[in-house]
Amino acid sequence: MLYLIGLGLGAKEDITLRGFAAVKQSATVYLEHYTSIQPQFILEDWNAFFGKSILLASRELVESGSEIIDRARQEDVAFLVIGDVFGATTHTDLYLRAVKAGVRVEVINNASILNAVGNTGLELYRFGKTTSLPFWTSSFKPMTTYDVVKENMQRGLHTLILLDIKVSEPSEENLRKGVSIPEPPRFMNVPEAIDLLFEMEASRKEAVLAPETRGVALSRIGSPDQLITSGTLAQLRTVQLGEPLHSLVIPGNLHHIEEEMLSLWKL
Amino acid sequence: MLYLIGLGLGAKEDITLRGFAAVKQSATVYLEHYTSIQPQFILEDWNAFFGKSILLASRELVESGSEIIDRARQEDVAFLVIGDVFGATTHTDLYLRAVKAGVRVEVINNASILNAVGNTGLELYRFGKTTSLPFWTSSFKPMTTYDVVKENMQRGLHTLILLDIKVSEPSEENLRKGVSIPEPPRFMNVPEAIDLLFEMEASRKEAVLAPETRGVALSRIGSPDQLITSGTLAQLRTVQLGEPLHSLVIPGNLHHIEEEMLSLWKL
Repeated sequence: MLYLIGLGLGAKEDITLRGFAAVKQSATVYLEHYTSIQPQFILEDWNAFFGKSILLASRELVESGSEIIDRARQEDVAFLVIGDVFGATTHTDLYLRAVKAGVRVEVINNASILNAVGNTGLELYRFGKTTSLPFWTSSFKPMTTYDVVKENMQRGLHTLILLDIKVSEPSEENLRKGVSIPEPPRFMNVPEAIDLLFEMEASRKEAVLAPETRGVALSRIGSPDQLITSGTLAQLRTVQLGEPLHSLVIPGNLHHIEEEMLSLWKL
Repeated sequence: MLYLIGLGLGAKEDITLRGFAAVKQSATVYLEHYTSIQPQFILEDWNAFFGKSILLASRELVESGSEIIDRARQEDVAFLVIGDVFGATTHTDLYLRAVKAGVRVEVINNASILNAVGNTGLELYRFGKTTSLPFWTSSFKPMTTYDVVKENMQRGLHTLILLDIKVSEPSEENLRKGVSIPEPPRFMNVPEAIDLLFEMEASRKEAVLAPETRGVALSRIGSPDQLITSGTLAQLRTVQLGEPLHSLVIPGNLHHIEEEMLSLWKL
């Protein structure tokens, strides 16, 4: 049996009782450790919390190997994912391979940024397509974010922009040298995101984003110390929002109750 | 202190450890009982589970009265919501009034249909705007669902359609008579939803939905006994999906891994 278990967005205590029970009864417990990590993750704390020795699952282990599925054929295996289970295609792929191998799979859902963004007071049904914003490199400068914001704006819809996380990846320079030493994790913050959005505007000039465009910055959303900040992009470009993870919302048309909620978070 | 706590989508055990601890330390515990209910809800079971006497919160209590906020000024109050906290405007309104009254509010998030729809294997970032589908009455036949599906389809995006729930509302007939006896709860099922969508198509004739259009039906998503069924709308119109809650997805363009996942649920 393979349990795919969402951990939610904040602390260890954000796991559900059902998820916790599944971990306790599993012989092997993996924590997915490449699409997302908790900024202040300490393995020993998690081991103590669950009373288990948690194995950190790298991309290679999950995508290339058969270890997880082989074990799940013989015993209960828990596979833990920050946020909810199906935030990344790699987990769908694991699910598919497990089912094909005849392994029973149970999904235990939890909060994800896609619904916790409702904590801003912006109505979930007034969001358009969600988009992500990757770090730019010398050779990779994707503009998708700009197009998604533009299309959502034209329909009056809000856009949730997920900011890039780089977990245990080698630097471009090391990659060129053939050295695969992982860099420390990097989390894009809101000012970096706004700089990229302004670069896109400067290049495309379609009047989608300007310094006076409104934005809502989210830090550690779903945690007890979550911080929500509302202001113009020019204002949000200069604020300190503390520890990661950060996300950014570009609101579309606002209802009066949404306006009122945003005024709570005004700079 | 006011705790707004998401209960998740399945059983009692889908509350998070943080949410459970907040309930235990609260002097008063309300369960919001008008925007959603659990189909097999038994109050005594919940009281036993939490070791508390849970108060059922009607719309009048939450929206018109000051009882909840008055109590939260003096003691810890837990307000429980099926799914996640901010699925309905009424909760945003409660949040705003609490903050204005000087009450500290902590939100404890949980899974919502908006992220658990990822259990289908459809990628969450490829969904457009979510829409809901209300029961039609003789005088209220909204077509919004049709327009949202159409716009999302034009962009190749998936549409999640939330099917109406009627909780403790009087019937139209009784309302006309001035009798406000609440009817038993009603949950729209997938065949009823597809009938309505076909009525919209018959009236608008914009070739958005046809019997051969693909759909994905969700029953009790997020529960251990969740059921996902994929097929044409003509096929889904005739299936028995068991107990509520039901939802329906009209997929847009599909990636190969999404196709593969949907083939797991094929009729």
